[in-house]
Amino acid sequence: MSETAPFTPTTATAKLYLDDLQPGQRHVTGSHTLNADEIKAFAAQFDPQPFHLDEEAAGRSFFGGLAASGWHTAAITMRLMVDGLPIAGGVIGAGGEITWPAPTRPGDTLQVHCEILEVRPSRSRPDRGMITMRSETRNQRGEVLQLLTTKVVVFRRPPGENAEG
Amino acid sequence: MSETAPFTPTTATAKLYLDDLQPGQRHVTGSHTLNADEIKAFAAQFDPQPFHLDEEAAGRSFFGGLAASGWHTAAITMRLMVDGLPIAGGVIGAGGEITWPAPTRPGDTLQVHCEILEVRPSRSRPDRGMITMRSETRNQRGEVLQLLTTKVVVFRRPPGENAEG
Repeated sequence: MSETAPFTPTTATAKLYLDDLQPGQRHVTGSHTLNADEIKAFAAQFDPQPFHLDEEAAGRSFFGGLAASGWHTAAITMRLMVDGLPIAGGVIGAGGEITWPAPTRPGDTLQVHCEILEVRPSRSRPDRGMITMRSETRNQRGEVLQLLTTKVVVFRRPPGENAEG
Repeated sequence: MSETAPFTPTTATAKLYLDDLQPGQRHVTGSHTLNADEIKAFAAQFDPQPFHLDEEAAGRSFFGGLAASGWHTAAITMRLMVDGLPIAGGVIGAGGEITWPAPTRPGDTLQVHCEILEVRPSRSRPDRGMITMRSETRNQRGEVLQLLTTKVVVFRRPPGENAEG
């Protein structure tokens, strides 16, 4: 994806409303490098399987080496999006589709490439709408580790608040 | 869902292979009750938005009160499935669809109701296949907090290993 149509606001304090968003807008988040200890700590709490906990056991598994839980990749992706997308009212996901085309490995630097696919004002609630966003979580070699297409609730700009809001 | 066709193995040490699974089989996991501190700790690390971090701010938000990150609900769901489903080789998700019909609240007791929708042996790799599983994460009132339909890689029973494996 190119950076030709970013959806970052023009001032540091500005928040984005539905009115500011349109299909084709793109945003690349900051990055996070994760290490083996982080992978194991998340797995111990939420996904305690040998291939997420122990290098040796992981080497003999489906993954051929230590790999992060897919839900860990998803959680890091959320953190990068929350830190990077100044959507007014927050990033409120209603659900979507998720796949993990390749495992996340110790030392990988994750960065999320977001693109808005659709912007749809609500018919029944005039203060909000829904966007569909495609988010690719890539590592430092550009490999796609996670592909997430989500619907996100976004509010409309309140009357009287200007675009620099 | 009824418990008429569970897919728990018959002995405590037995592992389930693709050969043991068929559409319609169901399993109910153990449960986990989460509190406000857990919700805030997960959010501080992965989803630091006011409605996941602070009761007062949450009360004024879209959620009308403290709510867990959807990714926290997903992570707890994974833990309950990993602890409860003795699939040989582990629970290896390839991706799927996820929605959060209702927020997860402090004090909610989560339990996952799983049902196998499809079992498909791989054409190219005779040692494995893919199942499609629908997993409803419900609270103590039976409200569905998360609906997850995933594809999971499952291995076939190795030649020579008997069904009590």
